Amino acid sequence: MAKQDTLDPETRARILDSAATLFYTKGVASTSLNDVQTASGASESQLSGHFRDKTSLIRAVIDVQSRSVLAREESRLAAVSTLAGLRRWRDALVRSNTLQDGSYGCALGAMSTELSDKDERSRAALALAFGSWQQLIVDALERLRDQGILAADVDTHKLGTGLLAALQGGYVLAQNARNSTPMADALDMALDRISSFAESGR
Amino acid sequence: MAKQDTLDPETRARILDSAATLFYTKGVASTSLNDVQTASGASESQLSGHFRDKTSLIRAVIDVQSRSVLAREESRLAAVSTLAGLRRWRDALVRSNTLQDGSYGCALGAMSTELSDKDERSRAALALAFGSWQQLIVDALERLRDQGILAADVDTHKLGTGLLAALQGGYVLAQNARNSTPMADALDMALDRISSFAESGR
Repeated sequence: MAKQDTLDPETRARILDSAATLFYTKGVASTSLNDVQTASGASESQLSGHFRDKTSLIRAVIDVQSRSVLAREESRLAAVSTLAGLRRWRDALVRSNTLQDGSYGCALGAMSTELSDKDERSRAALALAFGSWQQLIVDALERLRDQGILAADVDTHKLGTGLLAALQGGYVLAQNARNSTPMADALDMALDRISSFAESGR
Repeated sequence: MAKQDTLDPETRARILDSAATLFYTKGVASTSLNDVQTASGASESQLSGHFRDKTSLIRAVIDVQSRSVLAREESRLAAVSTLAGLRRWRDALVRSNTLQDGSYGCALGAMSTELSDKDERSRAALALAFGSWQQLIVDALERLRDQGILAADVDTHKLGTGLLAALQGGYVLAQNARNSTPMADALDMALDRISSFAESGR
């Protein structure tokens, strides 16, 4: 009965928010359920009422972070209809990364590095998120192609993979360097490659 | 006295080897000193005799893994004197990654993702390793430039950063996909960009 009383959505959201922040800044394995309880101010019965164990909390955080990253990327990439627009997408990512001196990397990339070889459901959920993210990039490239900005024979899928990889590698090197310059250089190299398919530049 | 007896280099090497494998396959935070003891067959006093605490073990593993990656990369990259040679370097990386179905990612990249925001000495040690790795790539690109294979005005430093980022992002996406194709696509995109600076291709 006491347990039912504690299952309110506000408490659940507060626990998820604290867990997402701790997983992002400290890492998943380094965060204990006790850390989450302390950070969220939830009681032990509230925490266990909402999340059976750490694995179910991890999966819920993956869901929250995936929605958050994809909502951000959808709003930015859906607006891209020129090569300059694609550069502005790059600028926004580099700017956000600069604000935290490169720290923490990508929420999805860092969780994938920690979890992909340990929990198949986590890996698969993150793979769906990466797939959707890449599709948003591919859709933007295909809009550029369909408008004649990029050549008709451009391989949007491979370039989309390469651009997402440049971003992920940029996050890794920027986190290590405490500086977003490697991310900027990596994205520029990928965007320069994409620009080489510009009809006017051929 | 008993402690002194146990400080032989073979035991130290065995502990380091077990720790390096566990950190690589399970992650640093998910590996306990007890796991390392069990995997290496060392006694508790042998483990604590060689490594004061987990932090000192982590730093020793970073040293071992950095030497190992840099030795591999030096032997491969020092032989690169043509664009075809650079493609063979890419092929060797993709082949190794394919053998483990993309799993585990890059030993240095994964440790950096886990440790860079937690332990400044670990971050700095990994930054030195990434710096040396990048320099090996830059040296190869400069040999291509000095031979007239790449244009004289090519920015070898930025392209070197971009190529290393493509590789790191490729590791992240391949680990998540359980498949090395994203790494192959990412490296191809970076190498195609580098090849666009080929004197004959201009």
